Amino acid sequence: MISYESFKKLEIKIGKIISAEKIPDTDKLLLLKVDFAEKAPRQIVSGIAPYFPDITNLVGVKCAFAANLEPRIIRGYESNGMILGVGGGLLRGDNRGDQITSHFSLLKVDDNAKEGSFVK
Amino acid sequence: MISYESFKKLEIKIGKIISAEKIPDTDKLLLLKVDFAEKAPRQIVSGIAPYFPDITNLVGVKCAFAANLEPRIIRGYESNGMILGVGGGLLRGDNRGDQITSHFSLLKVDDNAKEGSFVK
Repeated sequence: MISYESFKKLEIKIGKIISAEKIPDTDKLLLLKVDFAEKAPRQIVSGIAPYFPDITNLVGVKCAFAANLEPRIIRGYESNGMILGVGGGLLRGDNRGDQITSHFSLLKVDDNAKEGSFVK
Repeated sequence: MISYESFKKLEIKIGKIISAEKIPDTDKLLLLKVDFAEKAPRQIVSGIAPYFPDITNLVGVKCAFAANLEPRIIRGYESNGMILGVGGGLLRGDNRGDQITSHFSLLKVDDNAKEGSFVK
């Protein structure tokens, strides 16, 4: 159990994905540019590539991100936040390829929710 | 900024709303029963009534909840979690009634996401 005060220290914010590209020489990593209604979009690295065979489906999606985590460098790319999702997981395959162990979903909001808004 | 370790202490889980009713003599409070794939549904009190003129629209919705907050007693009802949303806010009105200051949205997942699954 955690206190409400601890919960409030985490900023979860709505971001709008404005671009998504695969990071070369990786299986799972995407480089996202995300609009949080800040001066400039943020760069966020995410391991969700297996769940989006067509990554153009991600562009325009408004969903929830952990927005005040310490920046991390992943494969040389700075990541300034973390996209939130449920499910997923990969079972490493043989010649049949990898299998996704449960349905993956982002935490999505209505289209008229505003990027940059805080989850509370 | 917070660390990834602090973030992980918060459990955000998907719940499926199985019932919603207005708490008598309140303007904003709903009593929700929410399925997290636990032994029994949890009772959760939430101040989202103004955003759902027809509360039957909430039944069946799968969305994100803070699931390990300390229980709270609200108007005599124990609440074992907090539904997450963005936007909303009320401007207290005069004879025209209250106005909602920005669109309110829950954090929704695909229908085939499983209740009880952890956001990560």
